[in-house]
Amino acid sequence: MAAEGRVTAAVMIIGDEILSGRTQDTNLNAIARYLAPFGVDLAEARVVGDIKSEIIAALNHLRARYDYVITTGGIGPTHDDITADCVAEAFGVALEEHPDIIAMMASRWPGTELNAARRRMARIPVGGAMVKNPVQGPPGFQIGNVFVLAGVPMIMRGMLEDVGPRLRTGAVVVARTVRVEGVGEGVIAAPLEALAKAHPDLSLGSYPFFGPEGFGSNLVVRGRDGAAVEATVEALIAALADIGAKAVTRVEA
Amino acid sequence: MAAEGRVTAAVMIIGDEILSGRTQDTNLNAIARYLAPFGVDLAEARVVGDIKSEIIAALNHLRARYDYVITTGGIGPTHDDITADCVAEAFGVALEEHPDIIAMMASRWPGTELNAARRRMARIPVGGAMVKNPVQGPPGFQIGNVFVLAGVPMIMRGMLEDVGPRLRTGAVVVARTVRVEGVGEGVIAAPLEALAKAHPDLSLGSYPFFGPEGFGSNLVVRGRDGAAVEATVEALIAALADIGAKAVTRVEA
Repeated sequence: MAAEGRVTAAVMIIGDEILSGRTQDTNLNAIARYLAPFGVDLAEARVVGDIKSEIIAALNHLRARYDYVITTGGIGPTHDDITADCVAEAFGVALEEHPDIIAMMASRWPGTELNAARRRMARIPVGGAMVKNPVQGPPGFQIGNVFVLAGVPMIMRGMLEDVGPRLRTGAVVVARTVRVEGVGEGVIAAPLEALAKAHPDLSLGSYPFFGPEGFGSNLVVRGRDGAAVEATVEALIAALADIGAKAVTRVEA
Repeated sequence: MAAEGRVTAAVMIIGDEILSGRTQDTNLNAIARYLAPFGVDLAEARVVGDIKSEIIAALNHLRARYDYVITTGGIGPTHDDITADCVAEAFGVALEEHPDIIAMMASRWPGTELNAARRRMARIPVGGAMVKNPVQGPPGFQIGNVFVLAGVPMIMRGMLEDVGPRLRTGAVVVARTVRVEGVGEGVIAAPLEALAKAHPDLSLGSYPFFGPEGFGSNLVVRGRDGAAVEATVEALIAALADIGAKAVTRVEA
């Protein structure tokens, strides 16, 4: 997946609360949007429960396959927070208290006892480096090509700001959307496919909508060559005119 | 994962639009919540792009490992809708037009030409059965232990209603939540872990919150033995009183 010039990432969302339906995940979407301007393609995502063997197996698969892996969840002080233990085991290294994190906790939480539970959050795998947490609580960490972030969305997004500067960047994907109303995908499909076949370097997608306000589709042209994307959008708009589509608008992303 | 009595499922979300960040997925959460009353555990979820080899590999892995797989997305009429092709290939069977679906399209869309694109949506793998679509457009399908549903959330949720009655049901998981405010996880961790160790058949989780309205954690006790869950919730509330937590409330799910 890490073919010539392309920089790829996978996301691993860790937590029973996502799989049980208790919590609606928003971290995947936030990470995908964060990575896009760095030219890093999110190529796959997995949601795994709080099971050590599952987390380790998925992490070892993903980190071998993609340039980067970003995990969310399971780095708090409670017994169900097992991500750091799993990452250390996946890398075959020890998990050790980091003196800088202990010092940070002591200065941030004066008068608070650094009990065993809180000290758990100061552990990072040997060879790892901290990922800053500008919001609340202890940091995340990076080891190799794996970034380990919090699950609470506000904290996760704060930590992401310290991930971007460490990424090898790729060519940014340009995406343009053409919205067509009152015409079904069944009519759009043929001209869209013809354009897709003529431009194998671009990705053309159709995302239909239905609702009280009407129906239609958002047609998205994506690619790394901005001029080619623009030319294809123009060709698409012309093709839609040819099939009699009237309500065609460019949507600003 | 399909150990004694437990019924498991995996979700496979298919679509570049989720990985690019264009669309916030909500289908995973809707499916998790839908499955819970059937006693079917969502054990894993994957998000894969519109790449044939990726979809086939993930599907074959998941359908061998879990009792059921539910896929969403990629069953429309456009060239990027490749899910049915991939499922047929994964099962090693042909993809054929289903006469009942053609008849349904003809009656639902009178006066609409059943062109090649629309006919694509009438194809299901040989040996498969339709999954009703009560909302809009053609049906999904089931083959073996795999259910193939639409990606548009409103349509996906409609199709789910025809999935439930086909599932082998398991013992339903009972979940109870205790909300504690003004106390950090670092203090809660020790009594929570003690309870978790005393009740290995239950799952105890801590989901912290932070915001303008304060901080604290939602403590969730989950298990198939309702009486054991209740007793553990009572023990948890007593343990929280012991550590001086004052704002402790049971949250109705």
